[in-house]
Amino acid sequence: MPQLRVALAQVNARVGDLDFNAELVLSRCREAHAAGAHLVVFPEMVLTGYPVEDLAMRASMIAASRAKAEEVAAQLAEEGLGELVAIVGFLDQAEGVPDGPGIPKNAPLNAIAVMHGGAIVARQSKIHLWNYGVGDEIRNFVPGDVLHVVEIHGVDVAAVICEDLWRDGIASAVRAAGAGLLVVPNGSPYEANKDDVRLDLCTRRAVEGGVALAYVNLVGGQDELVFDGDSLVVDASGTLVARTAQFVEELIVVDLDLPAARRLMPPPDTRFVGLRVVRTVISSEPVAPYAPVTPPILPRLGDLEEIYRALVVGLRDYVDKNGFRSVLLGLSGGIDSTLCGAIAVDALGPERVFGVSNPSEYSTEHSRSDAAELARRTGLDLRTVPIAPMVDAFQGALGLTGLAEENLQARVRAVVWMGLSNQEGHLVLACGNKSEVATGYSTIYGDAVGGYAPIKDVRKTLVWELSRWRNAYAEARGEQPPIPENAISKPPSAELRPGQLDTDSLPPYEILDGILDAYVERDLSAEAVVAEGYDAALVERVVTLVDRAEYKRRQYPPGPKVTRRNFGRDRRVPITHRWREHLADD
Amino acid sequence: MPQLRVALAQVNARVGDLDFNAELVLSRCREAHAAGAHLVVFPEMVLTGYPVEDLAMRASMIAASRAKAEEVAAQLAEEGLGELVAIVGFLDQAEGVPDGPGIPKNAPLNAIAVMHGGAIVARQSKIHLWNYGVGDEIRNFVPGDVLHVVEIHGVDVAAVICEDLWRDGIASAVRAAGAGLLVVPNGSPYEANKDDVRLDLCTRRAVEGGVALAYVNLVGGQDELVFDGDSLVVDASGTLVARTAQFVEELIVVDLDLPAARRLMPPPDTRFVGLRVVRTVISSEPVAPYAPVTPPILPRLGDLEEIYRALVVGLRDYVDKNGFRSVLLGLSGGIDSTLCGAIAVDALGPERVFGVSNPSEYSTEHSRSDAAELARRTGLDLRTVPIAPMVDAFQGALGLTGLAEENLQARVRAVVWMGLSNQEGHLVLACGNKSEVATGYSTIYGDAVGGYAPIKDVRKTLVWELSRWRNAYAEARGEQPPIPENAISKPPSAELRPGQLDTDSLPPYEILDGILDAYVERDLSAEAVVAEGYDAALVERVVTLVDRAEYKRRQYPPGPKVTRRNFGRDRRVPITHRWREHLADD
Repeated sequence: MPQLRVALAQVNARVGDLDFNAELVLSRCREAHAAGAHLVVFPEMVLTGYPVEDLAMRASMIAASRAKAEEVAAQLAEEGLGELVAIVGFLDQAEGVPDGPGIPKNAPLNAIAVMHGGAIVARQSKIHLWNYGVGDEIRNFVPGDVLHVVEIHGVDVAAVICEDLWRDGIASAVRAAGAGLLVVPNGSPYEANKDDVRLDLCTRRAVEGGVALAYVNLVGGQDELVFDGDSLVVDASGTLVARTAQFVEELIVVDLDLPAARRLMPPPDTRFVGLRVVRTVISSEPVAPYAPVTPPILPRLGDLEEIYRALVVGLRDYVDKNGFRSVLLGLSGGIDSTLCGAIAVDALGPERVFGVSNPSEYSTEHSRSDAAELARRTGLDLRTVPIAPMVDAFQGALGLTGLAEENLQARVRAVVWMGLSNQEGHLVLACGNKSEVATGYSTIYGDAVGGYAPIKDVRKTLVWELSRWRNAYAEARGEQPPIPENAISKPPSAELRPGQLDTDSLPPYEILDGILDAYVERDLSAEAVVAEGYDAALVERVVTLVDRAEYKRRQYPPGPKVTRRNFGRDRRVPITHRWREHLADD
Repeated sequence: MPQLRVALAQVNARVGDLDFNAELVLSRCREAHAAGAHLVVFPEMVLTGYPVEDLAMRASMIAASRAKAEEVAAQLAEEGLGELVAIVGFLDQAEGVPDGPGIPKNAPLNAIAVMHGGAIVARQSKIHLWNYGVGDEIRNFVPGDVLHVVEIHGVDVAAVICEDLWRDGIASAVRAAGAGLLVVPNGSPYEANKDDVRLDLCTRRAVEGGVALAYVNLVGGQDELVFDGDSLVVDASGTLVARTAQFVEELIVVDLDLPAARRLMPPPDTRFVGLRVVRTVISSEPVAPYAPVTPPILPRLGDLEEIYRALVVGLRDYVDKNGFRSVLLGLSGGIDSTLCGAIAVDALGPERVFGVSNPSEYSTEHSRSDAAELARRTGLDLRTVPIAPMVDAFQGALGLTGLAEENLQARVRAVVWMGLSNQEGHLVLACGNKSEVATGYSTIYGDAVGGYAPIKDVRKTLVWELSRWRNAYAEARGEQPPIPENAISKPPSAELRPGQLDTDSLPPYEILDGILDAYVERDLSAEAVVAEGYDAALVERVVTLVDRAEYKRRQYPPGPKVTRRNFGRDRRVPITHRWREHLADD
């Protein structure tokens, strides 16, 4: 059987930075060439970054992307890399598509360019656009209807893009077209346990299609998304033969024995399963037999480590890609801000993390000492700004009481953080967790203030689990655990009035998180949640809190998605609505 | 020719409130029946309200909507209205659609029920889902593929839903199916000049289809959308024969002479232009000849009045549908907050509007006197809370300078507003205009604070135009103009440092608004904007401001859409991106 050395380039592209991304592609092509690869595969839309959202419809961006793709192909040949076949995702444009309602302006395509010999020898576009969860591609792209088969060194290579692989039918099209290798560029965001789902999917499609399959994904953070890489290769029997590390840039090469091209030359308009198949021959001569290398098959990270690393990468790239030097966060001594501090130090190093302790008359001694202990253990900068003088000044004019007085303290803290942010140039972090964001247990323009919310998608019970995991991870390596044990073990409190506990306002988090999982993540009706064993009145209360907090969530800072359903684009509901899940006694 | 009396029910539904909406439908059916109508047509998804977003995919909501539709049909018959045919939008469910990627969960349908004789005698679903601008329907609905023709008193009546009408091809399907009347339930949001576009569209489709056309739209505010009604009827020659008032609930009846049903009975799976046509006969006997009534053809409002009314309705419904009693806004004496105060008084009455003046050491005398004059003219409540003591308290601890000090003042004001809001229960209004929102010329967590932003989609030059219009409107009716002339005529200033003017930071608004129109509304590249005659360096500066302000816009409160492109769902770009429009000298 003909051999082929395939390089998988798992890279961290920057949305909109075509020059940077082109250099990323070129440098990885050089590396692949040096490693003797015949084919190198890049992730989805690597040249523009992903997702570009409505920028896809800008005529100027389409033109720049197309020109840059031609430029990269030419540059490869100029550098003597013309024989290497590079599959590079980019923003292309469909021809002959008339303007009209329902047609994305300028007919953009989510496409790949097959580069060889200084030119783009084939182009293919995503057939099935991703339009659920956080995907809105039907808004931005025209779908493709062509399956290209490119013969490379006597092997028929087909490619489909990300969502295409998830749809039934694609494998039979690939099989009918007689491909020996299917490559899949992806922009597939991380969520917990998705690695298992992906491997299953790749295995299934390889077996269905009778093809070896090379899956290449982006890595890095982009607004609320974190790409975890997890690039892999399975052979035609569905056996995993290579897998990259998660959450890091990496290039791996894999040697595959592949079936000789059948060289079927159907008429150009032949259709298999609704797709027009087009063939391009780059080279029909198999490469001379050579000794294969052993590719890595790296094990997956543990469940908690995986989530923690996603949070670290999400924060790091949000800070770096937006050009911030440092972050600032309020450190209350509570577990949420403490965990955020540890994540920030892991992401940026302690010299780029600035904590502020804002004690009030209701702050306990341990809230200060726990914040100080975090600073001591991690080396982050901590300063103390008591809020009593500012609170007193407001109260002298307003005389607020009850909840209004509680919120005042949170907002005074936020004004301090934002003042320091403006003065010193830090990005402020909002430290709320998913259970709080869900129920609105936060002060809008208070603790909800910030440019980025590192644990917005982490429910409270998981906050504790991650904190314990992080400490255990340090201990196992003989390092200082960053998180003070007292911050983990003490009962949670907002400390906005004397002796206040979260459980004054909310059910215990073990119960709350169970109800939220059922109502928010699984979309169950209130009745169905009750049927899972929760108290009906409590379910009604939680559901009402969740529905009423939508106005707060709309103004909450972005944060990294780590579950199947982050708030925001994952779950779109009106602010103004009176849909109430009906309980039996309603 | 057979006659038919058709009632158009232009109503204000509430999203999710099925009981309220059912009563709305019943009461308008009673009114239509009393007016002798044979057919009454309601807007798109009137029973659930529109748009319901991801709520469409909740099994519990689908079940409730289907049950409520059956209930309404039965209730009509019970009340002796069974002979009236009612076309009622609701949330339905497709049968036999398997779960899978790209299929909205639970297969929801954006549907209409044809009610007669106590039952639903026909159902049809939206064929072309609206998935551009602020529409995301492909995410939420399964498309329909059936065109129902219902024979009512010897007339063949077809129906299509909103976006269906915008697509070429639908009219020829209707013509091929031989319909004499096409009814179109809509959830079509307001934008400036859309009334002209709609009438053109209806005229064109009527002529293409050879049918009379009855267009029925929602009215009222829903989050960022304002529905303007603008329901109308054109005859088969394309002549306008009836049109409702804008922005108000209304029921009109129209008598039409329509061609007798052809009674073609094609086999049930006959397809015209890709649609399966299904026929249902309700009654074949034409009604006895009667004398027609003269329907209203109300003229459109002037351009400025139309926008002003949209702002008033948007604010009123956001407040009322969310259950607020009152609004509170900071009154700086500047034109933005002054106009917002006038809109709020028009929407809610002066007793529900609370203004706060927060003078600082940099406030000018006229900023206080102009705010007081607005209060005097409109009767809104005004109180004064100087901010010097709070600013001093922060500065004692922080010693902020420059922009950080300017922002501090804006944030102290916001803490005052939010404190009063929490204490007294007002909804806070953010008074920023579109030019500010575009360029980020606002303080996040300062003047950008609020639950609703009444003029978020109104560029600064239009703020002045609307203010002048509002005063002239009052003068023409012999009323007190609400807006102090000095607020209109003085140069705009944030008053955050001595002698500050907006033009210190921004180009004159006439120029800025022109650049924003080209770059934001028309999506031109920077180069193309320069080609329209603007200075290249200035364009580069404005484009950079717009791109960098995306993080602020994400946290800006919702506000009513009045242009073709409001920020938010209309224009979706990443926060983190390095796409820079390239100027010639870049």
